[in-house]
Amino acid sequence: MNFYMPTKVYHEREAVKNHREEMALLGKKALIVTGAHSSRENGSLQDVTEALEATHTSYAIFDRVEENPTVACVMEAALLGRKEGVDFVVGVGGGSPMDAAKAIALMIQNRDSSEEVLYQNISLRALPVVEVPTTCGTGSEVTPYAILTRRDKQTKQSISQKFFPDLALVDGKYLEKAPLSVITNTAIDALGHMLESCFHAKATDYSRMLCQYAMEVWGAATGMLYGMEPEEGDYDRLLFASSLAGMAISHTSTSLPHALSYYLTYHKGVPHGKAVGLFLPGFVRALPEQYEIQVTMALRALGFGSLEQFEGFIREMLGTVSLTEEEVGEMVSGVMANPEKLSTPIFEATEEVVREMWPV
Amino acid sequence: MNFYMPTKVYHEREAVKNHREEMALLGKKALIVTGAHSSRENGSLQDVTEALEATHTSYAIFDRVEENPTVACVMEAALLGRKEGVDFVVGVGGGSPMDAAKAIALMIQNRDSSEEVLYQNISLRALPVVEVPTTCGTGSEVTPYAILTRRDKQTKQSISQKFFPDLALVDGKYLEKAPLSVITNTAIDALGHMLESCFHAKATDYSRMLCQYAMEVWGAATGMLYGMEPEEGDYDRLLFASSLAGMAISHTSTSLPHALSYYLTYHKGVPHGKAVGLFLPGFVRALPEQYEIQVTMALRALGFGSLEQFEGFIREMLGTVSLTEEEVGEMVSGVMANPEKLSTPIFEATEEVVREMWPV
Repeated sequence: MNFYMPTKVYHEREAVKNHREEMALLGKKALIVTGAHSSRENGSLQDVTEALEATHTSYAIFDRVEENPTVACVMEAALLGRKEGVDFVVGVGGGSPMDAAKAIALMIQNRDSSEEVLYQNISLRALPVVEVPTTCGTGSEVTPYAILTRRDKQTKQSISQKFFPDLALVDGKYLEKAPLSVITNTAIDALGHMLESCFHAKATDYSRMLCQYAMEVWGAATGMLYGMEPEEGDYDRLLFASSLAGMAISHTSTSLPHALSYYLTYHKGVPHGKAVGLFLPGFVRALPEQYEIQVTMALRALGFGSLEQFEGFIREMLGTVSLTEEEVGEMVSGVMANPEKLSTPIFEATEEVVREMWPV
Repeated sequence: MNFYMPTKVYHEREAVKNHREEMALLGKKALIVTGAHSSRENGSLQDVTEALEATHTSYAIFDRVEENPTVACVMEAALLGRKEGVDFVVGVGGGSPMDAAKAIALMIQNRDSSEEVLYQNISLRALPVVEVPTTCGTGSEVTPYAILTRRDKQTKQSISQKFFPDLALVDGKYLEKAPLSVITNTAIDALGHMLESCFHAKATDYSRMLCQYAMEVWGAATGMLYGMEPEEGDYDRLLFASSLAGMAISHTSTSLPHALSYYLTYHKGVPHGKAVGLFLPGFVRALPEQYEIQVTMALRALGFGSLEQFEGFIREMLGTVSLTEEEVGEMVSGVMANPEKLSTPIFEATEEVVREMWPV
């Protein structure tokens, strides 16, 4: 088994301000990569620009990262970064800008390369990357992954180059202004990371430790998903659980629910966390009987007394998405054509088993 | 709270052989730092030299690291390393060679510096370091610490420069040939790391997660300390628990039992693990009443039903050491003069409290 998690993480109130000197050590000019709205609304963008200004670090802003960013969006931002002569990248937001930031850092560093290198099996270096998460799902601040939308393949796919952010500045205050739907969808994305990593063929005691702790922290903070008033520290707990789950999938990768979700997101526009969550009850149902005790313990840690209760939670939180029989077939065939993903669960992923993960 | 653990860890049977190419990437010529005997007896030295030869990497061997290595020993090895033109260091053995390897890597890199820099508050770089642990206590393979014996101060002290090994190659097979007394003493050193980190003023959920898992793994593997036949995987469990506990103290540092232990080791020649262990019951007794549930849970995870049972275990494993009233006074004053160490526990470390940690 192995352990590798080189990102330096600071999780605390005012993390960006408190560790601005360490951020400034990474370069002379930053490209801030973010979306158009939420990082302005939750104060994260302002915190980052103030931190850079306070340390006399120049910056340019690329704020056109859409949800599920495309390769084209990455190339556009990289072009700006090269023009501006930046030497490090700061991703601010949810999984979309944080993933994009990594791919952009790669394409700025390798200025003479075309977008093909993103999906080639070669090893390239990238500019240093700082990540400031503002949702509680992706864990991208501590993973080596960058999932982009590929129009050429009509799906989402992680770039081939894998590298960790240098610095993750994590502060639960940015979640306070997020709509409950965003909290719910992203918390369920993190839940997917936990369950998929925990019952992954590549799980080790290192990754299981991360999942186990993540589940307990997550289970202790989800009252707000049911409409309760968040308790002091709940946003930070969800964010902490999301980071731990990110560390776990950094070691194992994700599994079938993520693989299946990309179809729903690409073809039906379903938000990532919801798309993943819809497959989680089916994934848990597919786990072999000899894992019954572990499954029960995992669900209890997460706050669910039974598989039925977990299924009810997913239905209540996410509703349904309708797919025709043909669409289901297309979605399943896509995953069946991906031997790497089929090897991820601890059970044999036959076509029948994969098909039974839909519907909830 | 923060998390930083950049060492790449491989824990598996034949880790050295399996990851020799990655080791070879660190340089062209290695200085192997080890003791005179045990790394020859348990096969670790041969595995390392074979791995280097297979990758056409030159090496020199410094095999004169004694227990509780001195600054003089580090300087002697660094001199050899400079003469031989090495560009990375491989520590093989228990805490003594692994700690020494870090200090030696520093003194080779900074060839024009004298030994004073080891204890100065300046930031220096060091050669890359690989660690191959052959005992189950120190966790040095994943910590930034290097504890050396300072004759000038008549004690042991960590060098001021802190840096993590680049690579830790962990294989339980090396423990199989260790005498039971070494397994016991080093397992109790790891136990000290867990308890001292768990109830440390700087503990966070990251460090607590590491301690909690370490305790459960340790508790599941200690039958052999009571004379039982080791079960399949027990050596690897003890080593894994030791690495996790090392990761925990990398975040918190150790606490009073370690601080007090240095007196027993320096003045009475008591092996490190035993010296630490003798203070653990007193440390646990000193924990405030409001931590009772956490203390009970920690002891249970470790396999102890009560504090009395834990005290009995320590007495049975370690026996006693006799100190005069004057020596106890000297030992306590030494720690009372160290405000940094006094700030480590979650209780106020008055002279009376510290004195009551002795005897068992």
